[in-house]
Amino acid sequence: MKLVIIGGGSSYTPEIIEGVIDRHHEFPVQEIVLVDIETGKEKLNIIGALAQRMIEKSGVPIELSWTLNRPKALMNADFVTTQIRVGGLAARAKDERIPLSHGLIGQETNGAGGILKAFRTIPVLMEICNDISKICPNAWLINFTNPAGIVTEALLKCSPHKKVIGVCNIPFNMKHSVAEIMGCRPSEVEIEFVGVNHFVFGSKVWIKGMDETDKVLNKLSNHDLNYSPANIVSLGWSKEFIESIKLLPNPYHQYYFQTEEVLRKDVKAFHENGTRAEIVQQVEKELFQKYQDSTLQVKPKELEKRGGAYYSHAACSLMSSIYNNKGDVQTVNIQNQGAITDLPFDSVIEVNAIITKDGPKPITIGKLPKQVKAMIQQMKGFEELVVEAAITGDYNVAYASMLMNPLVRNESKAKVVLDELLETHREYLPQFY
Amino acid sequence: MKLVIIGGGSSYTPEIIEGVIDRHHEFPVQEIVLVDIETGKEKLNIIGALAQRMIEKSGVPIELSWTLNRPKALMNADFVTTQIRVGGLAARAKDERIPLSHGLIGQETNGAGGILKAFRTIPVLMEICNDISKICPNAWLINFTNPAGIVTEALLKCSPHKKVIGVCNIPFNMKHSVAEIMGCRPSEVEIEFVGVNHFVFGSKVWIKGMDETDKVLNKLSNHDLNYSPANIVSLGWSKEFIESIKLLPNPYHQYYFQTEEVLRKDVKAFHENGTRAEIVQQVEKELFQKYQDSTLQVKPKELEKRGGAYYSHAACSLMSSIYNNKGDVQTVNIQNQGAITDLPFDSVIEVNAIITKDGPKPITIGKLPKQVKAMIQQMKGFEELVVEAAITGDYNVAYASMLMNPLVRNESKAKVVLDELLETHREYLPQFY
Amino acid sequence: MKLVIIGGGSSYTPEIIEGVIDRHHEFPVQEIVLVDIETGKEKLNIIGALAQRMIEKSGVPIELSWTLNRPKALMNADFVTTQIRVGGLAARAKDERIPLSHGLIGQETNGAGGILKAFRTIPVLMEICNDISKICPNAWLINFTNPAGIVTEALLKCSPHKKVIGVCNIPFNMKHSVAEIMGCRPSEVEIEFVGVNHFVFGSKVWIKGMDETDKVLNKLSNHDLNYSPANIVSLGWSKEFIESIKLLPNPYHQYYFQTEEVLRKDVKAFHENGTRAEIVQQVEKELFQKYQDSTLQVKPKELEKRGGAYYSHAACSLMSSIYNNKGDVQTVNIQNQGAITDLPFDSVIEVNAIITKDGPKPITIGKLPKQVKAMIQQMKGFEELVVEAAITGDYNVAYASMLMNPLVRNESKAKVVLDELLETHREYLPQFY
Amino acid sequence: MKLVIIGGGSSYTPEIIEGVIDRHHEFPVQEIVLVDIETGKEKLNIIGALAQRMIEKSGVPIELSWTLNRPKALMNADFVTTQIRVGGLAARAKDERIPLSHGLIGQETNGAGGILKAFRTIPVLMEICNDISKICPNAWLINFTNPAGIVTEALLKCSPHKKVIGVCNIPFNMKHSVAEIMGCRPSEVEIEFVGVNHFVFGSKVWIKGMDETDKVLNKLSNHDLNYSPANIVSLGWSKEFIESIKLLPNPYHQYYFQTEEVLRKDVKAFHENGTRAEIVQQVEKELFQKYQDSTLQVKPKELEKRGGAYYSHAACSLMSSIYNNKGDVQTVNIQNQGAITDLPFDSVIEVNAIITKDGPKPITIGKLPKQVKAMIQQMKGFEELVVEAAITGDYNVAYASMLMNPLVRNESKAKVVLDELLETHREYLPQFY
Repeated sequence: MKLVIIGGGSSYTPEIIEGVIDRHHEFPVQEIVLVDIETGKEKLNIIGALAQRMIEKSGVPIELSWTLNRPKALMNADFVTTQIRVGGLAARAKDERIPLSHGLIGQETNGAGGILKAFRTIPVLMEICNDISKICPNAWLINFTNPAGIVTEALLKCSPHKKVIGVCNIPFNMKHSVAEIMGCRPSEVEIEFVGVNHFVFGSKVWIKGMDETDKVLNKLSNHDLNYSPANIVSLGWSKEFIESIKLLPNPYHQYYFQTEEVLRKDVKAFHENGTRAEIVQQVEKELFQKYQDSTLQVKPKELEKRGGAYYSHAACSLMSSIYNNKGDVQTVNIQNQGAITDLPFDSVIEVNAIITKDGPKPITIGKLPKQVKAMIQQMKGFEELVVEAAITGDYNVAYASMLMNPLVRNESKAKVVLDELLETHREYLPQFY
Repeated sequence: MKLVIIGGGSSYTPEIIEGVIDRHHEFPVQEIVLVDIETGKEKLNIIGALAQRMIEKSGVPIELSWTLNRPKALMNADFVTTQIRVGGLAARAKDERIPLSHGLIGQETNGAGGILKAFRTIPVLMEICNDISKICPNAWLINFTNPAGIVTEALLKCSPHKKVIGVCNIPFNMKHSVAEIMGCRPSEVEIEFVGVNHFVFGSKVWIKGMDETDKVLNKLSNHDLNYSPANIVSLGWSKEFIESIKLLPNPYHQYYFQTEEVLRKDVKAFHENGTRAEIVQQVEKELFQKYQDSTLQVKPKELEKRGGAYYSHAACSLMSSIYNNKGDVQTVNIQNQGAITDLPFDSVIEVNAIITKDGPKPITIGKLPKQVKAMIQQMKGFEELVVEAAITGDYNVAYASMLMNPLVRNESKAKVVLDELLETHREYLPQFY
Repeated sequence: MKLVIIGGGSSYTPEIIEGVIDRHHEFPVQEIVLVDIETGKEKLNIIGALAQRMIEKSGVPIELSWTLNRPKALMNADFVTTQIRVGGLAARAKDERIPLSHGLIGQETNGAGGILKAFRTIPVLMEICNDISKICPNAWLINFTNPAGIVTEALLKCSPHKKVIGVCNIPFNMKHSVAEIMGCRPSEVEIEFVGVNHFVFGSKVWIKGMDETDKVLNKLSNHDLNYSPANIVSLGWSKEFIESIKLLPNPYHQYYFQTEEVLRKDVKAFHENGTRAEIVQQVEKELFQKYQDSTLQVKPKELEKRGGAYYSHAACSLMSSIYNNKGDVQTVNIQNQGAITDLPFDSVIEVNAIITKDGPKPITIGKLPKQVKAMIQQMKGFEELVVEAAITGDYNVAYASMLMNPLVRNESKAKVVLDELLETHREYLPQFY
Repeated sequence: MKLVIIGGGSSYTPEIIEGVIDRHHEFPVQEIVLVDIETGKEKLNIIGALAQRMIEKSGVPIELSWTLNRPKALMNADFVTTQIRVGGLAARAKDERIPLSHGLIGQETNGAGGILKAFRTIPVLMEICNDISKICPNAWLINFTNPAGIVTEALLKCSPHKKVIGVCNIPFNMKHSVAEIMGCRPSEVEIEFVGVNHFVFGSKVWIKGMDETDKVLNKLSNHDLNYSPANIVSLGWSKEFIESIKLLPNPYHQYYFQTEEVLRKDVKAFHENGTRAEIVQQVEKELFQKYQDSTLQVKPKELEKRGGAYYSHAACSLMSSIYNNKGDVQTVNIQNQGAITDLPFDSVIEVNAIITKDGPKPITIGKLPKQVKAMIQQMKGFEELVVEAAITGDYNVAYASMLMNPLVRNESKAKVVLDELLETHREYLPQFY
């Protein structure tokens, strides 16, 4: 079995290497190839060397290599993961700074920043998918490049390769937070998820097989504790909010329902420390210094500060379940197919699915919870515009996607912000120019 | 043929009387009864006397009476119109002031104010429908009480009487505006409408049977002229906005896509002149002074300042087409039934329909225009919560409706504004207390 | 304005010429070109000469020509009609004989015979549509080549030209029959149609604007009279049938709900007179003898025996309404678009539609009548397979279409009948060979 | 944990007792109550005594009782199963004889016989559900009374109790048959099921986790072996049929696609041995003689001849998975909820589902396989009419259900057969009289 990691020079790669090593008894990968592009060559070499040390230390029989030659790497691949960042953290910094400068939250998932990230990322991933469909058509592509839901929707709608699954660490994070709230282990928590990536809700929570939804919501509504991953604000939720929606929100929902407060915090944080991207640049710099330490043979603790914890866990669990035809339930971004009747058939949704050799099949949800249907449909409608604009490079559709974004929804700012972002990212946006 | 006007003491009644008189050759109403409630008695008497003078002057053989006894008035009715304002303009003033005081637009149609207006109005209209279904089950109820779309949806979903049609003057206004832009007569303009009440778009515009959509949009996007009824702001639209959505917006869309500018104007206007409700109170006072002039025998010009121009035109045209089985096309608020596939089957939509003796049948639209699907679905999702809360009096659903409103969407303000509004309107909200 | 009649050598052409002449005051066609293929040359010359005499007699200023050069004929066309019969009546005779020889009804619309007719016809009409989309892309194609619903669905799904409307004379026939039953003029009858071509029901009947559905159904269920066009059996309906379905059936429904009796009659008629195709061949022979009579200057009465009466009336009415932007209601075969929620969005349905310059827009039906939903969905499911097989030439899909046909539904006969029909029509089925 | 078996005097009961005993380690039932009605008293006593001996022999600590007092039995129940036969086998014999006498297959599941079985059964099960919803509202009702799909749909649509699951042995049988064909154990076979009860197809087949659909279909199409349960014909399938539908049929599909052959066999068998009901009556008689043997302490082998093998296995597996929150996949009859987009939201479908403490959630199917969509939709449309007629007793709807049944579809026979069946079963059909 062969695994190809595209964006292999990413600071996250040690986590995925660790995940593969830890599961080797049930998921016996024989070969790993790390792939990156010219500008990532130095990082790739650092990560390659560290991964080599990790594998050697573990004693598992995995053959590792790293390369800039993607087509060659893809030959005979069984699984491909993608964790790329077109334009790097510098581009992300602009995604965040420009909207902020116009009084808008510079969100890199589903906000104005995320729209541009999608525009930069989708063409590259389309190319990768084209390669896969020719070189290794039976391989599963596990995409955790953000905005993961939008990117996965674009690939499933427009690329010839249909074995694509999007993963995100938010569902995992939510289980961890619930475990913390309820004093149990994350593995004892199950959540029924409904919605779209970064806008997903938990509609039921079981602890050790018992439905404890009410108890969890009650604790949440009493501000019993902090409930947010490292990388975003944590304001807590009011009693009324929780009692009305009767759902477990995810931390990103703060952006949409506490917009003013988040914006205030973001502006303040920006003036003190720069954007999140700029903080992350500093964290990354330190990480890579660590990674170069030739005595380091494991994933360093510091990686967890990075905000993306559990991504690799999600990806490795998923690949192992496919390989082993486990039939277990995992949370993935896949085509709706009717699982949520209020969203289009070909939308990508974030949902629990049965994982077998055939890939994931969504467990039917039925109707969206009425309390949040309005916003989930709005998010999906906006996402569809992003996908179309990213593929076609149509300015009008791009403008419409910005306008329909709930964090923008402003006739004049939509234009200003879009124009500045298009201009600054020009080199990564061939479809628009 | 008998017509019953509920809310007969309204300042708009002379317009509907004029409409009936003007159409008497084709729509031969024999009896009109104006109905109002105790607190409206004085106004009812003034309007009754004026209507009597108007009928006498016209020479048409219509028998007129006015009464506080609604059940008796409904006997043998063929058409019933409703133009009521539960709590009067004083209540509207609160609907506008309270949200404004928290930095939110106090919109009386689909904003925070409109939600409360729905809460006050729906129970009263449910009672009226119950009466109609018992006393005159074959009568058509033509509702132009706002929020007309939400109210009509509540009645069609929950009342036993199903012959209910909602009308609004906005489609009519849009035709007039287009006529002005294009230098033709309103009767030469046809528009294909798609959406929901106060959030309707024109997807096609024909002038004298020719598709002139592009020309009209082009003129609009060049700010060629003012395009708003008397009662709301008029900011114009940018080129980008029009070119992206490729639809004719209605003036209310300014609230959603130019929120900050409208809010700024509203706050300024409020400090100078009070809320729109308060201005209208003054206009009404003057109108009723005019109405009392026993030499007045026609609808006075001043009524057009009131903002509701063309409501009665829409209602009278509709009733005449039903009566005459005309098979013509009019724009109404009716059950979707699949006409727009992206909205629920039982939603009320604002749409062109064929009008026959059987009532209106929507002309199929198919999919929502992709550029605005996100927002139209959000509006409908929020409206469904308003309907449910208005019927059940469930606080949590009321909160959710406020939260999902695009002009609110704020966890903490939703609560504060809702609580203040519920409290101030307590006497009209038995379902909540 | 230019009209092109493809299959101009058809015996029906004089009817359409008559229709154009009669409407010349409102539908001022300037040029008509009759087009046919080599094997139809002789008939084309006869029809051309007759049409010329008809036009001369009428005195309307229409320029007529006839040709085998289709591309040239299409230049600058505004309307194109198609009434072709690939393989001629000889092919139809085989469509009918072969199924009959295996104990199945040889139905040329939606039975086993109709499936093969679709297989022969669709590729030719695809070619015609390709030509139209290149040569005269603004022209409307009015298709009355049978099976009209299936053919129209294939074109709308698979051809680049989307201005295609299918027409059938059955709705017209049903109005005439109702007029006869009710003692009024056909123009005073309106029917709400729901279903698919040759399987359409009347769900409401109005006479002079009054809903007389119950009265009409009551008359029908009492066998008050014969109710069938010239070309098919007329068995009448039982009281139970009509009272249960509460809909106006069309004569073709006899094939599906009185299968055994129809089969018995068909077999008997076959032994006495040969198939319907063979009778028609004789009728045609006589007609063309008449047509050659150089003193004949009008459509001869005998044409009405032919069974296709009113086709041309339907086509001419439709073209005139489009040309004049009439906004009237006609019954056509067009894309569903949600008008019937229980059928796919892209199905072609037979439905009332508003006819404007933009073409037809279906009037929303909503849900299928529950009593017949089962069979209408089955018909559409079978039709989808016919469309796919006709386009792809996939034998398995062709077999499935035969198997799913309610008049076949027999594992072994489906194969035998299909194989014999494919073989006998081999020369017209390039997609299968 | 308490289990109540309604229809406890059924000859199948020993199988379910065996199932409970065998699973006692994981599904620790503490109390079983067998319930029956007055006319079944004698059988109930025989079964009760046998069950007691079986439990004693096994040594598991289950307390057993039997009673005619249903309400008392239901107190504190956790699971209720129903296996009743209103009117007994004598009624079934009439269900089969009467249609046969008119040349129609007398099918007791979804044919004319099944319609009447539904009419007799649904009112009784509605009563049982009413009791459950009052006495033990948390209990799951596991229904395997036929027609199981239609009955379950009626209960989920019309009864206040929503914890209802229908089970059938056909999916289990199909796994066994596949195991036989492929030379593996039934537990190594997984099938993706799609359709409705007794009209379900296998769309994918995995053996030990590998997709072997093609291999299985290939074997089937080569008539490699017999593939039918004890109680129905076994004609085999043709190559063309299997290659076209590309699905695993179930034995009941022979009734629909090989109607003439089945009818011929049924008529022949009828003349030789009477109806299946009459054969079963004999089998039952012999079984009950066996059951009375006080030395019998296990389920006798002969029960397997009865045709209902694996029903109890399905029911016990299901209850154990609910109890243990297993999260495994089983095939059940439950509300669609969007899992199959071509069927109504509130239809009951037969589908794979994840089984947890919350009951079953369907795994999303998406669109119906195009090859069989026509017939599956027809079956569901017909079933909806059966449900409505069974609840309302409306003769016209009952007639329509008969008319829309693919094995009837005959205007005159529908009436004759319906009238005779209604008359003969009059005492069990209060809703119609």
